[in-house]
Amino acid sequence: MDRIRRYPDLAGTRRTDLDAVLDATAVGTLATVDDGLPWVVPMLYARDGDRIVLHGSTGAGALRHVADGAPAAFAVTMLDGIVVADTLFDSTANYRSAVVRGNLRRCAGDEAVRALDLMSDALVPGRSAEVRTHTKKELAATLAMVLPIEPGCWTVKVRDAPPPAPTADSGEWAGVVPLHTTARDPIPAPWVRAHVPPPDSVRRLVDGR
Amino acid sequence: MDRIRRYPDLAGTRRTDLDAVLDATAVGTLATVDDGLPWVVPMLYARDGDRIVLHGSTGAGALRHVADGAPAAFAVTMLDGIVVADTLFDSTANYRSAVVRGNLRRCAGDEAVRALDLMSDALVPGRSAEVRTHTKKELAATLAMVLPIEPGCWTVKVRDAPPPAPTADSGEWAGVVPLHTTARDPIPAPWVRAHVPPPDSVRRLVDGR
Repeated sequence: MDRIRRYPDLAGTRRTDLDAVLDATAVGTLATVDDGLPWVVPMLYARDGDRIVLHGSTGAGALRHVADGAPAAFAVTMLDGIVVADTLFDSTANYRSAVVRGNLRRCAGDEAVRALDLMSDALVPGRSAEVRTHTKKELAATLAMVLPIEPGCWTVKVRDAPPPAPTADSGEWAGVVPLHTTARDPIPAPWVRAHVPPPDSVRRLVDGR
Repeated sequence: MDRIRRYPDLAGTRRTDLDAVLDATAVGTLATVDDGLPWVVPMLYARDGDRIVLHGSTGAGALRHVADGAPAAFAVTMLDGIVVADTLFDSTANYRSAVVRGNLRRCAGDEAVRALDLMSDALVPGRSAEVRTHTKKELAATLAMVLPIEPGCWTVKVRDAPPPAPTADSGEWAGVVPLHTTARDPIPAPWVRAHVPPPDSVRRLVDGR
């Protein structure tokens, strides 16, 4: 999760900045309006060029409502550091965030297969090439959706800076406590025999930490 | 960020589970409805007993709309691990998430001061006791809000488990790649002189990592 650029508390307009934020994590919050009220759910996702891919269970009623074209907003946030200033007022956080607004639509057939493979590879790059593809039964149980990334329908914000400088030096400490998320050693499932190594995709994920 | 209980993909109903999830991070996503459309913004927050405290700038128009009682939903999500199964279909993530629904209201006077102190101490425990309190000017520039945590108006979900067991042992590896977020060494602001140590609150934060 490398920083994308050093600028303080600025709303970005570059599409490359948006993509960098969206590609840096795998979980976000999907919001829609249900009967006039806000409705939100955390979801795994992947970016696929100019769209965001999401999935869920076809059994989830609220999700079907969204998948059928209801207006949606998808938000991603990462907390990157705690910004400690001379005053509580100037103390804040370093973060990366993005919001993409639009209308979801369902995927079907080959498009759904591709969307689900992308979701898997967003979590564990290369994993979809190591295992069998989805069965018809699995596809029928899965709601694959895409949210287009359209001009004017997204915002990206990044704060990656020291605290605001005080008007007069107080002599006190001020600065940033960086927060980092890293992968730890893989934990095999209880039924996996001792000599079986993790697949290449998992090893790459952990070695890249 | 300790795990709160080992249960697979279960929606919890215990208030202690909700509190544990809300207390484990400091950033969430606030959603409301604006002119019929979903509106979301990432926000810092703190839990204060039976309510969530949020703050923003009084200059933010959309936030004033929410603060004046519009229906809101606040979502928190933490990605705790990548769950690698024998199939893409059974692969998923370990996570903690919570959603609290209700109507925000503004704080004023001493209640606002207390709310803002809580926000600071949620990021850096004990920090509010180390520095001066808020000035009138700072308070005037800050919108402090509370969202009540009321029975029946929240959900908490935690997945903290291995992948689903395959029906027949494939001989392949399956398991979890845990993700952990930790604080790194504090970075002093450019104007801080070399001999000035971080305050106790920051040292405790880093030592507790």
